[in-house]
Amino acid sequence: MKNRIAVYPGTFDPVSNGHLDLMKRGLEIFDKLIVAVALNPDKNPLFTIDERVGFIKEAVKNWTNIEVEFFDDLLIEYAKRKKADVIVKGLRAVSDFEYELQMSLMNRRLDSHIETVFMMPSEEYSFLSSRILKEVALLHGDIRGMVPPGVAEGLERKFKGL
Amino acid sequence: MKNRIAVYPGTFDPVSNGHLDLMKRGLEIFDKLIVAVALNPDKNPLFTIDERVGFIKEAVKNWTNIEVEFFDDLLIEYAKRKKADVIVKGLRAVSDFEYELQMSLMNRRLDSHIETVFMMPSEEYSFLSSRILKEVALLHGDIRGMVPPGVAEGLERKFKGL
Amino acid sequence: MKNRIAVYPGTFDPVSNGHLDLMKRGLEIFDKLIVAVALNPDKNPLFTIDERVGFIKEAVKNWTNIEVEFFDDLLIEYAKRKKADVIVKGLRAVSDFEYELQMSLMNRRLDSHIETVFMMPSEEYSFLSSRILKEVALLHGDIRGMVPPGVAEGLERKFKGL
Amino acid sequence: MKNRIAVYPGTFDPVSNGHLDLMKRGLEIFDKLIVAVALNPDKNPLFTIDERVGFIKEAVKNWTNIEVEFFDDLLIEYAKRKKADVIVKGLRAVSDFEYELQMSLMNRRLDSHIETVFMMPSEEYSFLSSRILKEVALLHGDIRGMVPPGVAEGLERKFKGL
Amino acid sequence: MKNRIAVYPGTFDPVSNGHLDLMKRGLEIFDKLIVAVALNPDKNPLFTIDERVGFIKEAVKNWTNIEVEFFDDLLIEYAKRKKADVIVKGLRAVSDFEYELQMSLMNRRLDSHIETVFMMPSEEYSFLSSRILKEVALLHGDIRGMVPPGVAEGLERKFKGL
Amino acid sequence: MKNRIAVYPGTFDPVSNGHLDLMKRGLEIFDKLIVAVALNPDKNPLFTIDERVGFIKEAVKNWTNIEVEFFDDLLIEYAKRKKADVIVKGLRAVSDFEYELQMSLMNRRLDSHIETVFMMPSEEYSFLSSRILKEVALLHGDIRGMVPPGVAEGLERKFKGL
Repeated sequence: MKNRIAVYPGTFDPVSNGHLDLMKRGLEIFDKLIVAVALNPDKNPLFTIDERVGFIKEAVKNWTNIEVEFFDDLLIEYAKRKKADVIVKGLRAVSDFEYELQMSLMNRRLDSHIETVFMMPSEEYSFLSSRILKEVALLHGDIRGMVPPGVAEGLERKFKGL
Repeated sequence: MKNRIAVYPGTFDPVSNGHLDLMKRGLEIFDKLIVAVALNPDKNPLFTIDERVGFIKEAVKNWTNIEVEFFDDLLIEYAKRKKADVIVKGLRAVSDFEYELQMSLMNRRLDSHIETVFMMPSEEYSFLSSRILKEVALLHGDIRGMVPPGVAEGLERKFKGL
Repeated sequence: MKNRIAVYPGTFDPVSNGHLDLMKRGLEIFDKLIVAVALNPDKNPLFTIDERVGFIKEAVKNWTNIEVEFFDDLLIEYAKRKKADVIVKGLRAVSDFEYELQMSLMNRRLDSHIETVFMMPSEEYSFLSSRILKEVALLHGDIRGMVPPGVAEGLERKFKGL
Repeated sequence: MKNRIAVYPGTFDPVSNGHLDLMKRGLEIFDKLIVAVALNPDKNPLFTIDERVGFIKEAVKNWTNIEVEFFDDLLIEYAKRKKADVIVKGLRAVSDFEYELQMSLMNRRLDSHIETVFMMPSEEYSFLSSRILKEVALLHGDIRGMVPPGVAEGLERKFKGL
Repeated sequence: MKNRIAVYPGTFDPVSNGHLDLMKRGLEIFDKLIVAVALNPDKNPLFTIDERVGFIKEAVKNWTNIEVEFFDDLLIEYAKRKKADVIVKGLRAVSDFEYELQMSLMNRRLDSHIETVFMMPSEEYSFLSSRILKEVALLHGDIRGMVPPGVAEGLERKFKGL
Repeated sequence: MKNRIAVYPGTFDPVSNGHLDLMKRGLEIFDKLIVAVALNPDKNPLFTIDERVGFIKEAVKNWTNIEVEFFDDLLIEYAKRKKADVIVKGLRAVSDFEYELQMSLMNRRLDSHIETVFMMPSEEYSFLSSRILKEVALLHGDIRGMVPPGVAEGLERKFKGL
């Protein structure tokens, strides 16, 4: 029997209930799930790396076999260092699919021992992208039920007075 | 540590090197892989169910942790009966993606405990579909290197004299 | 104020809860909705035209401003005869989208006065296609909650003993 | 008979003949069309909100049942305030389609009483996107016939000497 | 200077003005264009191979540097026999694109010396597919302006009395 | 016999082996290929226009019938000035396809005498986009075999110490 470690990478700016749904699904299949928050300074994220990691840690604090941390090197190098076997990615839309497919072929070229597997979030979260979430929260739309409570507060704080 | 059983379903009419590539990748991740050949009488397959199962068994005869059989009931019922945790599907193109996404949401509705994960074959097989293979073989195109030797012979036999 | 009549065409083989969801949405916008069941003998439908019309009539019998009937001529001619202003179509997936876009440009060429508008079913029905429904029902999968009760019985009857 | 008010939102930076074509089609179906120009300061538009509203007002000055104004809150809140029943969006390409689909599911979640309907511009405008228009105008390409005269002048003024 | 021969293959069941538009565009670029009509007995075409070849010959009878004939072997073998350098294909929609891409990678594998190039028909024909054409003609829709006159008559003859 | 000149435009920031593969394929078909590097100051390229032109010149220095230069006006004007007959573009993914299709319809509108033809790179480069290349190089991933040697050095130099 294999001990399977999976890395679930992303910017998580911020984490949504769709991301959490995918983490649960990943944990059903793999023995351990490492949520890996990419630093991504060039994407100019809304929340700092500490905030982004913090939101996820808070949301999964009662879960087991899950680890949350940031990384700032090449995903495939990070995954190797963590002795991961698998990279897990969520797929919602065709446009996701094409970029992820290219990225995973690149990763396979860089290291042929780590496979990428794709999973789908529940269809009730299929419309949830971090980009749309932020657009709605900026204009004070009600995003409860789409993000964990800590993130809802964080977004409110960020956009108050705008 | 979990003992993970995956089902890889398909019509496999006939099995190609792209399918075999995906089986190898699945075996890297899961503890056991069950290749499940769908009867699909309404799709009017070129090869009988026995031929299709036979081609795969021959091609993987020296592999371990793999089982090949046919099924004729609902995939999700079959997977439950086999105590599988995961359904594995290959993704090559956007059009694959949409149908597979709908099918896996349907399967999730029918049984919420079995997840579908998607994996990609090597890009050297990205153009290989069973449909195109048969179109080429029918016109006596050289399909060696795209299918296991037994299938190449089988196709030649089927289309001789046409 | 305009009196807006919309035609919602389809094969409806059989009608699903996704179709009914779209009908409700259409009735919110237009003054009258005509569900137009295409004869489509060449598509070799599972249910007869009378069965398909009957299932819908039964499901909407308590609704107002809705009419259900079959048609066997060109959609655009039928719509003109019914004095319709609009054709309503559902969109779920990219593959739907492309065919529907071509069809609606063709209809615009045939009669420039009738517009096609596209609406989306609820995401809980986004995975429901009549094709997948029939595949599942044929293998005795539980499709309650996906179709109106009359259709569930009809499918059971059709596939009993298979 | 219902009095149907539709909102047609966009950045309109600048308005093109494809947008005007869609407005005409919207007016054929709905009793009143409100063209709602989004402020979008973060998108860094080429034209100011006043210029963008002005170009449209000039182009539709002889039309009836149409209103043009800007909005800077959540689209769905704006639509409610205007007592609109429907949001109208144009669809040209698959990539439009996916984002619009996500956005309209988000809007449905925020307010379930306002539907989004999608319409297609004439195929002679199917290649016209504001992004491509600006790329061409920046390099002094001839964009007459693609935009109303006021916009052609505005683009020329903006890019003179560049 | 090279003498460039291009093959433009298809079922052409029947030829449309969109196909003719593409032939003209191909002739602008290549020195000779061979329109190659695939026998395709398994696709159950509406018109016989002689009718399909005849319609095209009639439509291009005053053109130069064009040849029309049928073929019943592997496209790539046929192209080699005709000493062609290039296979020309039309692209209208994303769904075309994926199948054509797979097919052209397959052809490249079978013979690496013949390239496939894709061209676009005029946008006024972008909605024209032979499938939709036949659906409309079967129901006596007016397809003049979409096909050459001989094809319009042929379709009328085929579907008279249906 | 025609003397066919093709323009292959792009930002080439930086050139990859996928681009070079496409240039070779273009040279097989056309008599002369002009690689036209777009200035694109608004895209904020990583390498200067001189660096980008230089990398390509170095990589193709032993090839014949090829010319490399930059351009800063409208592509279609540039192509006319170079007496080109054809614009060549590479197609890898559906998302490429849609933008390129819109752009080529725009170019056809601006000058109807220059056709755009699409070609496919070898599938071993199908995952290579300049965007993904730079993401990997920034994090010191090994990109040899994906770019010509000069580019590998250039990327290393750019990202040293980051």
